[in-house]
Amino acid sequence: MAGNSFGTIFKLTTFGESHGEAIGGIVDGCPSGLEIKESFIQSELDKRRPGQSALVSQRKENDKVHFISGIYEGKTTGTPIAFIIYNTNKKSDDYAHLKDIFRPSHADYTYFEKYGICDFRGGGRASARETACRVVGGAIAKLLLRKYKIKIHAYVSCVGNIELLTDYKKLNIENTFKNPVHCPDIKTAAEIEKCIKKIKKQGDTVGGKVSCFITNMPVGLGEPVFDKLHADLGKAMLSINAAKGFEYGSGFSASSMLGSIHNDIFIAEKNKKIRTKTNFSGGIQGGISNGEDIFFNVAFKPVASIMQEQQSVNKKAEIVKFKIKGRHDPCVVPRAVVIVEAMAALVIVDHLLRAQTINL
Amino acid sequence: MAGNSFGTIFKLTTFGESHGEAIGGIVDGCPSGLEIKESFIQSELDKRRPGQSALVSQRKENDKVHFISGIYEGKTTGTPIAFIIYNTNKKSDDYAHLKDIFRPSHADYTYFEKYGICDFRGGGRASARETACRVVGGAIAKLLLRKYKIKIHAYVSCVGNIELLTDYKKLNIENTFKNPVHCPDIKTAAEIEKCIKKIKKQGDTVGGKVSCFITNMPVGLGEPVFDKLHADLGKAMLSINAAKGFEYGSGFSASSMLGSIHNDIFIAEKNKKIRTKTNFSGGIQGGISNGEDIFFNVAFKPVASIMQEQQSVNKKAEIVKFKIKGRHDPCVVPRAVVIVEAMAALVIVDHLLRAQTINL
Amino acid sequence: MAGNSFGTIFKLTTFGESHGEAIGGIVDGCPSGLEIKESFIQSELDKRRPGQSALVSQRKENDKVHFISGIYEGKTTGTPIAFIIYNTNKKSDDYAHLKDIFRPSHADYTYFEKYGICDFRGGGRASARETACRVVGGAIAKLLLRKYKIKIHAYVSCVGNIELLTDYKKLNIENTFKNPVHCPDIKTAAEIEKCIKKIKKQGDTVGGKVSCFITNMPVGLGEPVFDKLHADLGKAMLSINAAKGFEYGSGFSASSMLGSIHNDIFIAEKNKKIRTKTNFSGGIQGGISNGEDIFFNVAFKPVASIMQEQQSVNKKAEIVKFKIKGRHDPCVVPRAVVIVEAMAALVIVDHLLRAQTINL
Amino acid sequence: MAGNSFGTIFKLTTFGESHGEAIGGIVDGCPSGLEIKESFIQSELDKRRPGQSALVSQRKENDKVHFISGIYEGKTTGTPIAFIIYNTNKKSDDYAHLKDIFRPSHADYTYFEKYGICDFRGGGRASARETACRVVGGAIAKLLLRKYKIKIHAYVSCVGNIELLTDYKKLNIENTFKNPVHCPDIKTAAEIEKCIKKIKKQGDTVGGKVSCFITNMPVGLGEPVFDKLHADLGKAMLSINAAKGFEYGSGFSASSMLGSIHNDIFIAEKNKKIRTKTNFSGGIQGGISNGEDIFFNVAFKPVASIMQEQQSVNKKAEIVKFKIKGRHDPCVVPRAVVIVEAMAALVIVDHLLRAQTINL
Repeated sequence: MAGNSFGTIFKLTTFGESHGEAIGGIVDGCPSGLEIKESFIQSELDKRRPGQSALVSQRKENDKVHFISGIYEGKTTGTPIAFIIYNTNKKSDDYAHLKDIFRPSHADYTYFEKYGICDFRGGGRASARETACRVVGGAIAKLLLRKYKIKIHAYVSCVGNIELLTDYKKLNIENTFKNPVHCPDIKTAAEIEKCIKKIKKQGDTVGGKVSCFITNMPVGLGEPVFDKLHADLGKAMLSINAAKGFEYGSGFSASSMLGSIHNDIFIAEKNKKIRTKTNFSGGIQGGISNGEDIFFNVAFKPVASIMQEQQSVNKKAEIVKFKIKGRHDPCVVPRAVVIVEAMAALVIVDHLLRAQTINL
Repeated sequence: MAGNSFGTIFKLTTFGESHGEAIGGIVDGCPSGLEIKESFIQSELDKRRPGQSALVSQRKENDKVHFISGIYEGKTTGTPIAFIIYNTNKKSDDYAHLKDIFRPSHADYTYFEKYGICDFRGGGRASARETACRVVGGAIAKLLLRKYKIKIHAYVSCVGNIELLTDYKKLNIENTFKNPVHCPDIKTAAEIEKCIKKIKKQGDTVGGKVSCFITNMPVGLGEPVFDKLHADLGKAMLSINAAKGFEYGSGFSASSMLGSIHNDIFIAEKNKKIRTKTNFSGGIQGGISNGEDIFFNVAFKPVASIMQEQQSVNKKAEIVKFKIKGRHDPCVVPRAVVIVEAMAALVIVDHLLRAQTINL
Repeated sequence: MAGNSFGTIFKLTTFGESHGEAIGGIVDGCPSGLEIKESFIQSELDKRRPGQSALVSQRKENDKVHFISGIYEGKTTGTPIAFIIYNTNKKSDDYAHLKDIFRPSHADYTYFEKYGICDFRGGGRASARETACRVVGGAIAKLLLRKYKIKIHAYVSCVGNIELLTDYKKLNIENTFKNPVHCPDIKTAAEIEKCIKKIKKQGDTVGGKVSCFITNMPVGLGEPVFDKLHADLGKAMLSINAAKGFEYGSGFSASSMLGSIHNDIFIAEKNKKIRTKTNFSGGIQGGISNGEDIFFNVAFKPVASIMQEQQSVNKKAEIVKFKIKGRHDPCVVPRAVVIVEAMAALVIVDHLLRAQTINL
Repeated sequence: MAGNSFGTIFKLTTFGESHGEAIGGIVDGCPSGLEIKESFIQSELDKRRPGQSALVSQRKENDKVHFISGIYEGKTTGTPIAFIIYNTNKKSDDYAHLKDIFRPSHADYTYFEKYGICDFRGGGRASARETACRVVGGAIAKLLLRKYKIKIHAYVSCVGNIELLTDYKKLNIENTFKNPVHCPDIKTAAEIEKCIKKIKKQGDTVGGKVSCFITNMPVGLGEPVFDKLHADLGKAMLSINAAKGFEYGSGFSASSMLGSIHNDIFIAEKNKKIRTKTNFSGGIQGGISNGEDIFFNVAFKPVASIMQEQQSVNKKAEIVKFKIKGRHDPCVVPRAVVIVEAMAALVIVDHLLRAQTINL
């Protein structure tokens, strides 16, 4: 039973391989009457597009999204929204010498063992290129969230040993996409840029973290006991290529904290709106949003495609030496920022629609 | 759209509130012919039962599981397996004074806002008591995994500032359930016990971590691109009460690593079986198990029910002072160990069945 | 992948075997705040209970429903509603001689081949006793439909060669449950009663039809292109034991009709409400309710448990002669009436909740 | 919650409107290694294509299927199979005068009320053009069924008052697609052809029936208690445009039969294979296939687009007179034959994969 769909009511199904004709997807369950601003969706795609700067993969893809159905006179009709992004800049030759080799820490081996057949070109279905479709789905979700004034902001908070520890509330978040590493703190951004350049020169790659916060959340999203809001956010983030960890609110640091410190005391605003003084809960209590900001971190491993000679085995289980060609990212996190936002948007919209039930 | 079911082919649906008549569940999709050893299932339940030691909640529940359907002459028949656990030791009076108060960092406020009505007694549906049903479902899953010799071991690896950093392979894992804190390292277990006792005396609570590893994994479990094995494990763990974070393999530490270090080089054993030299991947590549051990960590926050006077607001948004009565855990992680194992078993079994498709 | 759940948002999962300890189910996704009138639910169950009259199975079951969770102070809380009906009047001895025999047109053979194991007592899971759980789920759904003033009425419209052809609008539908055959036309009811008695005396059984109509339908229920409202109604009805066919609106007679006759001309009422002059569409156009009455027929086969000596084969594929003991219905349709209503209610409520999305 | 996906393990999701750029779909869950014979798939599409004969819609569509993903070197890879069929012969002008009119017995009114917006051109999403995507999905399913030697044959068995009552076993089924009305009995085919021509000349339309049988069925497909094999077949058929009824095995005639006649006596063949003497069960007992042929009938209403002046209302609820232009079928059943087969193939493949679980 395959797993290429995400969401329950607002559901994205994606298709396509890195070096096939195209990638694309279907959004089923989008409410009708939503204005689809294609320029916005394209601008979202541009944030993850390869070839943007010297720091990312030099594959030159336009990543132009093309809508096929579900939109009439600029608005959604309630029918499935299909879209397609053609693969225009394939260089499958770069992969010919890898046809029978299982690249370390790639999905070659597991796909081959699972399916008995594998489109090895550019990682096939396992390529992060697939995430472009998530960005499209997420952009539609964001357009819907605008109606609720819910805002999602992600940014690079760590690359290698460089970590941005500033509270997200104190960041000039509009700076994020003004630099190639997508970090809103200009000083840290410069350090990260330097770090990635150095790593790239070494033919190596490096990991990092993306942080995300969601503001203006309504109370009540999240479905006990298994589809808790943070559980679905966690799954969404962990489903992104190269993700290794997820934490929300106090996260892993909660393990060393005391309850007397960690408890978020409730207070009442003048208008009787109930808030919490602190927000170790990360905006979610009992799996349900409490109206405070949601925030979380996602850890990413270093890209497996290093530009150094490596040892591995081939399909005959023989030891081989090889070197990866092609156009790869020395660090995945700058391009992951908009993917994190997109997956968050898909989760929030889906739970928004799931919560549209009637309380009698 | 509610979320009280977990899994796709092997599916657990749970029901019940902490102070209702009973809790229970249905496992649908369990293969027929599986011998149900009730004594094993009961022994699993006993590992999370309250009242086991001075370190955990003193609620005296037998937690006796009672099977109603789906089993005939000791074996599963392929029909739904329903089970029930009666709530025999309720003390709803302990909650009467809390009826209108939103306890800090509990689910009272969010449930009330979401549903407009709330069974406040003992946390109702949001109580961790619900996880007993997961242990039953997980125990059935473990019986099925035995047929595949897949083993799942979890243990407490951190409480407060005490952390067990030993590689899981060097632990005497059979020690885990021989001490009340469920830590396999005897020295660390003693420290943790001392720590929890101290915290309890202060009327406070403390967070911690549970680590888990899975051995003898087959290659090929996990479904790209959204239902990656680690994404489903992550969701499973994050759905457990009080969980704040999940990481697998190199986890958050991957963010500061280089690709040249992090890549797991493939090697071939004499029998041509392909293995990896290192295992930063945590047994999962491209979302699919590669046959190496799976391992991951789950972070838990300190229990919200501290034994100190606290401030909060009531349903009228008035500020109130109150003190929690009742029987609560100063630290949740010892009892979470078997729950982590249960949720892992549910995920692995479900993916095992999902992978039973035909490769032509 | 098993199939013991029905519905997507309002979801019923059932469990239990005919001669096990109990049958029951879980309703997940019922909105909170719904008043649960247990007396109403019990009265629904009483309509399908065996032992009501000389015409139906003499198994004396109280069929007393017992709610375990999801209800607090008489109202639903939005959490799973679990219920149980104990099997109090089992006579498993009646089945001992059938242990190894595949009864003709029963599910013994297919269950045994599918699962390799079978609780043969009373048909096990394949027994129509399971439908009592559908009646409970359907009764909860009916309570919710009352809020929308949607009404569902089913009745026996055919037994053997006796057919009630009167338009449903001309029936005194409140007569349905005033006679043992659950036919609203008193004259036809008497004929049917006579017919069933005769058949019973012969040790034989007979088939029939149940008709159903739904009034006060809102426009807009049904989800193209696969989950059309009538497609889900059809599946619901066909999932009832012994069902052989389903037709709605003009049904099978449409196959010989002309478009110029069959088209339902739209008209406008004074309040600009749009209606249709005729209703061959059966209240559904393009899979979506159009506000007119929905009506449909369900065909049922004669009960397989005849009271005559029969020939069959046993598990060793040897030819055997045998005679069924036990307490069986000579005609299933009178007891099927409330089951048809229940399944219709489940479908309508589920689609009502599915339609609660936002049109921007 | 929309409904544009069909199936659980082998899942087809379709998209597209009649007069949009294209229609298409994604098959997720197809096993890897299946050889995709595009010529076969195209030949299936050709069976439902408009413009084939004088009897069907004169819209000249190539209906050329184009695969985008999931196939590598002619074989499926286990990843999503996306396909697209361009709409090359749109004549949206034919619909301009209908923009504000609700055509009788079409989906215009219900779509408009449900979604508040409607792509009125050619019926938009509600057009039977969407079923071309089902034929593609079904053709892939048929390729998989070939591995199991399972065969599905549908044919026109009734148009208007002309009915083919011959037992399906006595038909030369290979004749079906040799005549424009897709009826395997040459004499009946001629009568039907004459009938449709006459109806067409009158500017009218007529209903009909499609019958279908499935041979070489394995025992064990179908999932109690809700996803019975015939319940899923019924839903599949009823989801086809214009379908009004479904019956399997003895069908509606069962309602007048006696159990002593209707029961299918088991017999054993020499090789101990268990069979039934008769097959009123239609190859399904207790919702599970018993190895005998499955057979069923589907009733279709007359096409709503008649070539006569009609009365209706517009969006302002004003009465209007209008005449449909465009290219329409006087009778839908000849083109429905391959759609019925496709939907049956989707159901059987899905249940085949659902049954791939392990019996211990």
